[in-house]
Amino acid sequence: MELLVVTGSGYGGRMAEQVLVTLDGQVRDAAAPLLHVDDLAVIRGDGVFETLLVRDGRACKPALHLDRLEASARALDLPWPGRGLWTRAVEAAAREWGGDREGWMRLVLSRGREAGGPPTAFVTVGAVAERVLRARQDGVSALTLPRGYSVDLSASAPWQLLGAKTLSYATNMAALRHAQAQGADEVVFTSSEGRVLEGPRSTVVIARGKTLITPPPEQGILPGTTQKALFEVAPDKGYSCEYAPLFPSDLIAAEGVWLVSSVTLAARVHTLDGLTLQSSPAAEDVASLVELAVETIGSD
Amino acid sequence: MELLVVTGSGYGGRMAEQVLVTLDGQVRDAAAPLLHVDDLAVIRGDGVFETLLVRDGRACKPALHLDRLEASARALDLPWPGRGLWTRAVEAAAREWGGDREGWMRLVLSRGREAGGPPTAFVTVGAVAERVLRARQDGVSALTLPRGYSVDLSASAPWQLLGAKTLSYATNMAALRHAQAQGADEVVFTSSEGRVLEGPRSTVVIARGKTLITPPPEQGILPGTTQKALFEVAPDKGYSCEYAPLFPSDLIAAEGVWLVSSVTLAARVHTLDGLTLQSSPAAEDVASLVELAVETIGSD
Repeated sequence: MELLVVTGSGYGGRMAEQVLVTLDGQVRDAAAPLLHVDDLAVIRGDGVFETLLVRDGRACKPALHLDRLEASARALDLPWPGRGLWTRAVEAAAREWGGDREGWMRLVLSRGREAGGPPTAFVTVGAVAERVLRARQDGVSALTLPRGYSVDLSASAPWQLLGAKTLSYATNMAALRHAQAQGADEVVFTSSEGRVLEGPRSTVVIARGKTLITPPPEQGILPGTTQKALFEVAPDKGYSCEYAPLFPSDLIAAEGVWLVSSVTLAARVHTLDGLTLQSSPAAEDVASLVELAVETIGSD
Repeated sequence: MELLVVTGSGYGGRMAEQVLVTLDGQVRDAAAPLLHVDDLAVIRGDGVFETLLVRDGRACKPALHLDRLEASARALDLPWPGRGLWTRAVEAAAREWGGDREGWMRLVLSRGREAGGPPTAFVTVGAVAERVLRARQDGVSALTLPRGYSVDLSASAPWQLLGAKTLSYATNMAALRHAQAQGADEVVFTSSEGRVLEGPRSTVVIARGKTLITPPPEQGILPGTTQKALFEVAPDKGYSCEYAPLFPSDLIAAEGVWLVSSVTLAARVHTLDGLTLQSSPAAEDVASLVELAVETIGSD
């Protein structure tokens, strides 16, 4: 009888399609079930997550993601297993994935089983989706869709969890399906006042001359780790950076609009609501600034 | 070496703490993990569910729940495994649970694994929570909390999935924790216009004389199966039933306010936002009407 042995070079010695490391530091078989039917991640979306890019066998800007994961966990009153365990699991998972190809890392923390017990916490790494490579290369078309909230809701209704990255993404996924059914790749959410908020899985950044602008996170937006890293490196390269309210008309008038995120990096929006946006003199700069940002900022 | 054997009288022959039946009709060990780390229920809350009361070894009003499960699945463009498989699994799970005690049944359908493959679909039955028995007996205190949406959002923004019972319940759970931190048991959500919507896990019903009133489901509310069954039996017992917009002041002026749901049945709201509500001459009637409704309406 053969036993599958976990080695240092990928699960069972093969090039894994998916790597799974639980927070106890164990490398596990991602092909085997891990979660119970009463896990609150499963039945309530009651948990938080992060996605990170893996390059050269290490996670990009892990410190920014662990900061945000901890803030999200606090917003949901989740037990926090401690940063050290996460760091160790992130490093182990990136190492298991290897340095030959990019990886798509996900950190997941749920409240655990309804029956009680410890929180559920694990790290996975899988292949980067084809659509991501296309979005980086060719840009995306996007549709504005109302999210129904006022920009003021976040401050008065903390239970709406607007600044937390929860596992409850059903409406985000439905918005993306809705856009795709209309022939668009992505979504830009707007508030009930018609302000630009964010994408379902990205932060909106525009260029106005040599100024990069993103909507203020206080407006019920998830603070973007990639946008934050971009804003740290951009001033040294001659760009000033601002947080300011935006309307869709600001996107149409801008000299470049991007959906910025951890794995896709910078996806230039070439079409908004069917309208072709002007080509951007800053396009190459922004792409290379985001590359620089994720390589240099927030290594733990 | 002993092997755990699935028998007809509960998993492993013991009185099970939790029964699990997958949609292939298999009775499984609920103590073993079932879901993979890339199941879209886990990482996106991308699925739908129902909860049902089990009495005397059978599920109450299964037809109403399967109707709503199918409508929710349609709202999310989920693959639908077919009603026959659900009915068979519901019956098997209720039978496994047995007729000696009430049970809390959950039907779960997710889009399946991110890697592809069939949807994830299963039925569980566990014990009815202590808080449920207390709410039936003693009623509940509730807090009104704004949900941030207009009552008109649902019609114009189907991707908000307002009429679907999705697995993305993180904000519902956060609202309940928020209320509990203020010393209240439950929540009544209000719209951005200040209209009464629903509870995070219940439908609001009030009595005004011999009229029972609930807010219209078109206002971004999940259509309640227990409220629906109640409205089917109540006219025969001298109550007229209406769908009408309500404000919190209507709850304060009402002769009885209930949070109606499948497992708790009718929880009378005795306190709203700290204000003691008047005792209800209809209290006994409504409790027994809901009992009658769940026993007689919507058996498949």
